[in-house]
Amino acid sequence: MPLTYNLLQRDKNTEARLGKVKTPHGEIDTPIFMPVGTQATVKAMTAEELEEIGAQIILSNTYHLFLRPGSKLIAEAGGLHRFMHWDRPILTDSGGFQVFSLSALNEITEEGVYFRSHLDGSQKFISPEISMEVQMDLGSDIVMAFDECPPYPADYDYIAKSLERTIRWAKRCKKAMTAEDQALFGIIQGGVYEDLRKESVEALVEIGFPGYALGGLSVGEKNEEMYEVLEFTVPLIPEDKPRYLMGVGTPEDLLEGVQRGIDMFDCVMPTRIARHGAVFTSAGRITIRNAEFERDFTALDPDCDCYVCKNYSRAYIRHLIKRNEILGVRLTTYHNLYFMLKMMEEIRKAIHEDRFLEYRNDFYNKYKE
Amino acid sequence: MPLTYNLLQRDKNTEARLGKVKTPHGEIDTPIFMPVGTQATVKAMTAEELEEIGAQIILSNTYHLFLRPGSKLIAEAGGLHRFMHWDRPILTDSGGFQVFSLSALNEITEEGVYFRSHLDGSQKFISPEISMEVQMDLGSDIVMAFDECPPYPADYDYIAKSLERTIRWAKRCKKAMTAEDQALFGIIQGGVYEDLRKESVEALVEIGFPGYALGGLSVGEKNEEMYEVLEFTVPLIPEDKPRYLMGVGTPEDLLEGVQRGIDMFDCVMPTRIARHGAVFTSAGRITIRNAEFERDFTALDPDCDCYVCKNYSRAYIRHLIKRNEILGVRLTTYHNLYFMLKMMEEIRKAIHEDRFLEYRNDFYNKYKE
Repeated sequence: MPLTYNLLQRDKNTEARLGKVKTPHGEIDTPIFMPVGTQATVKAMTAEELEEIGAQIILSNTYHLFLRPGSKLIAEAGGLHRFMHWDRPILTDSGGFQVFSLSALNEITEEGVYFRSHLDGSQKFISPEISMEVQMDLGSDIVMAFDECPPYPADYDYIAKSLERTIRWAKRCKKAMTAEDQALFGIIQGGVYEDLRKESVEALVEIGFPGYALGGLSVGEKNEEMYEVLEFTVPLIPEDKPRYLMGVGTPEDLLEGVQRGIDMFDCVMPTRIARHGAVFTSAGRITIRNAEFERDFTALDPDCDCYVCKNYSRAYIRHLIKRNEILGVRLTTYHNLYFMLKMMEEIRKAIHEDRFLEYRNDFYNKYKE
Repeated sequence: MPLTYNLLQRDKNTEARLGKVKTPHGEIDTPIFMPVGTQATVKAMTAEELEEIGAQIILSNTYHLFLRPGSKLIAEAGGLHRFMHWDRPILTDSGGFQVFSLSALNEITEEGVYFRSHLDGSQKFISPEISMEVQMDLGSDIVMAFDECPPYPADYDYIAKSLERTIRWAKRCKKAMTAEDQALFGIIQGGVYEDLRKESVEALVEIGFPGYALGGLSVGEKNEEMYEVLEFTVPLIPEDKPRYLMGVGTPEDLLEGVQRGIDMFDCVMPTRIARHGAVFTSAGRITIRNAEFERDFTALDPDCDCYVCKNYSRAYIRHLIKRNEILGVRLTTYHNLYFMLKMMEEIRKAIHEDRFLEYRNDFYNKYKE
């Protein structure tokens, strides 16, 4: 078994839980946030810096690597870990989400998806089998099933039909994933519809996966709708398996997700906003480009003990960001990822000490959007 | 005295020499290459990385910092060292070179230079006194005199006239530089004309400076012309003072400069070409974007022991550079600066072991442009 999950502790008041995921490249303490390295690099960061800030696992994108540089090249390099010089666990998505969101879609058939590359318009095809082959070339520890991610909003009938196909694709993925050191997660779809989510979980559990992801969320629906979906879906997932909420989210989303029993998160947001000069602080998000920080010689977040906050001022980082200096993006990225990872570490500690709700309240009392 | 120079050893066959410069922020082994941090940042690098690759002193640009974020802001931050989190020596140029090369020049008067900012076209004025004031705000260890850097080619009469004014400006700089912990270097001008260079050195030595720079070189003249200028100018400089060749140069230029008695160099080239994916190797420069490196899983420079060459392949770095990933520029920049600093370290070792010419021949036998 390439992946095991140990449930270590349950919060008394909520669905929050503490666990440990074991993979071929090491262990992951859950709940965890996974920085995103779309093109085989977490933008602006080295592997050593990711380790320094406590990243235990990162995510990389099959769609992008499939197009460039190509998964065969990465296989020749000895796999994604070696190619990008990262020896801790990696999760790869299936390419499905990007095929549906980035590319010009041509046709969805039972066999797979025909699309045009968002880069050069060339004709491409991905199927469950091809997604598994690509992810085997990459050699990621956790592999995601190839699913259809329907647009939001979509009507019940469309979601229901799409879901049936996604379940058939999940079976094909399981059959095609023959690597013994890679663990395939199933993806629960069903939009915001309770009965469809239930149907999805039941079908996937029957197929049997070492972990389950919630897909099709954070795609345009209201936060409250997403939280509701978590509330009626997560309890259906076997408790001895990790639960991964894909593409989520903000610091608030992490708290709300953990409270509803989620173990794993990923999101490009902390690194993306960093490149535009927006940073998290314990008092809320600030935009460092703003004139108010021109002569502010305090740290990005006076409550933070990261490398950036110990050594640089808001005024300096503002200067760098406004000058388009790479170091500016490095520092905001480093800090934002540290903020997310540190927050997850504190959440784990709070669960361990039976004070998750207290932590949550303290957080919201300080953090204002 | 804020700066002292100790001549430690002279090469037997050439003008090459080994020395030590002491400044308020630490010692510098010469000959030395100084990475350039134009906007209070050596592009893409942290201070810790610069230390890791052996940078002993960096250069920053008065002109850019004068315009943005402004030297008063940096003074408020506690000076440039503190602002940019670099506690080793800093050399600042005078702003003169950029006023003449980047901005739209309005008028050169005896008092100073009227110009338009290259950023927003606003009217600006810099004089010897203003340059000194700005550099005192910055708090650099080594301060450069404000000079006119004439265009190349320029006729004898123009250079001669410009030189007279630059000498008068040098006197005003010395008077205006009142900071006790900053050392002002004079700048030798005179174009490619031997008698003018001689006149310049003599006038500056009479004024008296703790170090002398050669300006107005590497501005378009042939390499051979520059080397000739060094050959007839450097021997005129008092041997108990450091000699700095401004804005130079390539690996070859460093070798040729050291051989002719130069102690200090700076150049944006290693970092600039890195951003375009060009890297130094012991066999010569390569352009990592080229298709030939697509599946090359060896190090940038197989003879190099830097962090980048130990951990990443040409294929991966090519992928990053072609995708415009920040990490790509980080890795090529790191490697190129390491290459220059390591080369200078080897040159110092070779001088120490009385085999500078042997080192030079070995270098040229391997390194092909």
